[in-house]
Amino acid sequence: MNLDCERLFRDALDGEHGFPRSLLDELSQRFNEIQDEIRLRRLEGEYGFLDLGLQEATIAGLTTFADTAGQAFDHVLVLGIGGSALGTKALVNALRPRAWNELDDEAREYFPRITVLENIDPVSVSAALRRIDPRRVLVNVVSKSGGTAETLAQYLVVRHWLETAVGPEAAPKHLVFTTDPVEGALRRIADDEGIPAFEIPPGVGGRFSVLSPVGLLPAALVGIDVVALLRGARRALEAAAHEGLRDNPAALYAGLHWAADTRLGARTHVLMPYSDGLRELAEWFRQLWAESLGKRVNRHGEIIHAGPTPLGAIGATDQHSQVQLFMEGPHDKVITFVRVEDHGEDVLIPARSGQPEALEYLGGKTLAGLLGAEQDATEKALAQVGRLSVRITLPRVDAEEIGELLMFFQLATGYAGAWYGVNPFDQPGVELGKRLTFAAMGRPGYSG
Amino acid sequence: MNLDCERLFRDALDGEHGFPRSLLDELSQRFNEIQDEIRLRRLEGEYGFLDLGLQEATIAGLTTFADTAGQAFDHVLVLGIGGSALGTKALVNALRPRAWNELDDEAREYFPRITVLENIDPVSVSAALRRIDPRRVLVNVVSKSGGTAETLAQYLVVRHWLETAVGPEAAPKHLVFTTDPVEGALRRIADDEGIPAFEIPPGVGGRFSVLSPVGLLPAALVGIDVVALLRGARRALEAAAHEGLRDNPAALYAGLHWAADTRLGARTHVLMPYSDGLRELAEWFRQLWAESLGKRVNRHGEIIHAGPTPLGAIGATDQHSQVQLFMEGPHDKVITFVRVEDHGEDVLIPARSGQPEALEYLGGKTLAGLLGAEQDATEKALAQVGRLSVRITLPRVDAEEIGELLMFFQLATGYAGAWYGVNPFDQPGVELGKRLTFAAMGRPGYSG
Repeated sequence: MNLDCERLFRDALDGEHGFPRSLLDELSQRFNEIQDEIRLRRLEGEYGFLDLGLQEATIAGLTTFADTAGQAFDHVLVLGIGGSALGTKALVNALRPRAWNELDDEAREYFPRITVLENIDPVSVSAALRRIDPRRVLVNVVSKSGGTAETLAQYLVVRHWLETAVGPEAAPKHLVFTTDPVEGALRRIADDEGIPAFEIPPGVGGRFSVLSPVGLLPAALVGIDVVALLRGARRALEAAAHEGLRDNPAALYAGLHWAADTRLGARTHVLMPYSDGLRELAEWFRQLWAESLGKRVNRHGEIIHAGPTPLGAIGATDQHSQVQLFMEGPHDKVITFVRVEDHGEDVLIPARSGQPEALEYLGGKTLAGLLGAEQDATEKALAQVGRLSVRITLPRVDAEEIGELLMFFQLATGYAGAWYGVNPFDQPGVELGKRLTFAAMGRPGYSG
Repeated sequence: MNLDCERLFRDALDGEHGFPRSLLDELSQRFNEIQDEIRLRRLEGEYGFLDLGLQEATIAGLTTFADTAGQAFDHVLVLGIGGSALGTKALVNALRPRAWNELDDEAREYFPRITVLENIDPVSVSAALRRIDPRRVLVNVVSKSGGTAETLAQYLVVRHWLETAVGPEAAPKHLVFTTDPVEGALRRIADDEGIPAFEIPPGVGGRFSVLSPVGLLPAALVGIDVVALLRGARRALEAAAHEGLRDNPAALYAGLHWAADTRLGARTHVLMPYSDGLRELAEWFRQLWAESLGKRVNRHGEIIHAGPTPLGAIGATDQHSQVQLFMEGPHDKVITFVRVEDHGEDVLIPARSGQPEALEYLGGKTLAGLLGAEQDATEKALAQVGRLSVRITLPRVDAEEIGELLMFFQLATGYAGAWYGVNPFDQPGVELGKRLTFAAMGRPGYSG
């Protein structure tokens, strides 16, 4: 991947709503303190995702599992919610259709299909269980804490469905868990019943876990190249080893977004890939950015109610939905375009004779050509009206590029936590809702 | 549907970030002027969607088409983007799985499958055309203007694909257009080649067109009850006939959101249904609200850069993604919950003996029960920290309720345009991007 922040600088400096010219010096100075702070936090057990670039033993374990146990099934059903589902969906959506198309018929038989069940809507759960053959399914239950209410409810439903179909003896053979190495209900059940269970490293929170077994196991099961994912992740980690802010893309991205929010009021941060395969990656980013930065208090315990609002959009589709607002609405957004250079295939727009003029110019062009022209035009149009944007270019959508992009956004989020002065790894704001739910559901120890 | 704005009033008045107590009087007074203004605008040809409650001739025409020509195919492929796709996706996503489940095997054979192609990504277009049998497909090309670049490019690709498979003579028999009655390239092609073409009424813009043939034709083709959709729409129109603001739910919803934005800085308007089937409806709403209200100038030509940012979320899933930000981030959001009383089916969470305590309380409950408890808990938790929310209750997800909900949001958007003082029916901000695209693609008359 390649990050181009130059336009954001230039437009911001030249524009009506510009940064002060001293901003970059100021950011660079503060960045030295941020690096010291992050080194300290790592010693305290935070920033665990930084260690995910090298996981030889883990990769060996889950590859072996995928190659042996995993191959006995032709459907993988993932039960999880939030960070236990969004990363897997991002990986599958971006990489599986391509992997799938590149496979020959024999290999297609070899790799299973996949369904990620991330809600407790009875209609969608029922529909999935009607569609999937319980005799041919491997169920991957994913919960960092092992106690997520929605995931455990799904587990009880699916366990019963399995036992009814294959019997109580065989049902555990259809299960694999991904959870904390020691704590929680899922770990206890795994230990009691001998169910295989992969470990989420203790310092890696749910929304930073896509490159842990949370995302890697389903990816390996459906034939995505997990070694290449981590090779890409290491590329992002290496780029983040630079001490200078302008040479460290993730830190620069984070610092500019923080400055755009706090100095210019650009508090809505849009991620707009021009590729249908990256739609779920934008949803994954939305959780990462929102849960990590949306905080009541800063590191000193002062009440700040900080946090930009992340927004997903897809090009060219959302040019006909959200771009009117981006162009003419309040100056409160920064848009990150993700542009794919080589989509892997292209479609010729055939010329037709005797057509109205509105069609003629299209003949002989390609869909990728039109998509690229539209991305370029939208970026230019936004710049002309002084709107802030950043461009990320992916040469292609493959496991290495996606691994790099995912780690880049995790790094940027880790840095952004430091810019905002908040803890990007907790989520205290969801506890009250959980307690009220437990009380309503009659869980012991909770009352309304 | 039932709208409960009481909490928004109460919490806002009692809370730290409250409205002035005189707000309701002020809104009511202004609402009289707004009603006069809308009556005037209707005479000028705006607010055409208000006439969509009664369309007997149109319904007869498209029902006949669906019952005759439509039944020769087992796949409907819709080509469209923005307002030509989002409404259809909302209808299909909400209503088709249920319609489908309620059908017996014979009826399932009778109604075709449906694919909505809303982007020009060569990967997704190729994948769709590989999957669909061109000999068994009806292609519905949808463009209000008849000149949308993305849709015409799709049309040229699909037309060539059809001709290759079934021959140039038979290809037109696989096409039906939905477009302007007189203007545009699609209308000309329809006239030249005798392709059936349904009309989008001139006063109905793309994003207000779901209850015109744009959404009704695909809906009828896949077996959705279009008569019930319009019956529901009329219910919303009747509720909007009330002169008093508090008895007119759409006007009240619009006025409160405008006040929350302009008085309290709550400029992010979240639609959060607790039902997977309403996910696409939230995306449809996002376009409606964003394109209609995000405007550079007001009706007097004064530069205002107005417009709230709409955001979609799905419960319970996004409790693990966005609710942390809603709870603890800036006081800049109003959340509309959509709660479904009867999901049509439910799933028992089976009790299991000998399980860890974290699972025990769930046994014997149902998924719908848990989902409802979580919606309630999230709403209460947000209220406890002074966050603004509104609740819409749907007794069930059927064609009548969805027709009412869609018309309710269109009415609210029409009213909101008046509160904000902008024209909710144009989208001048997307013209520059279109011109730059045309220039890059070499369309005559455009240059960079």
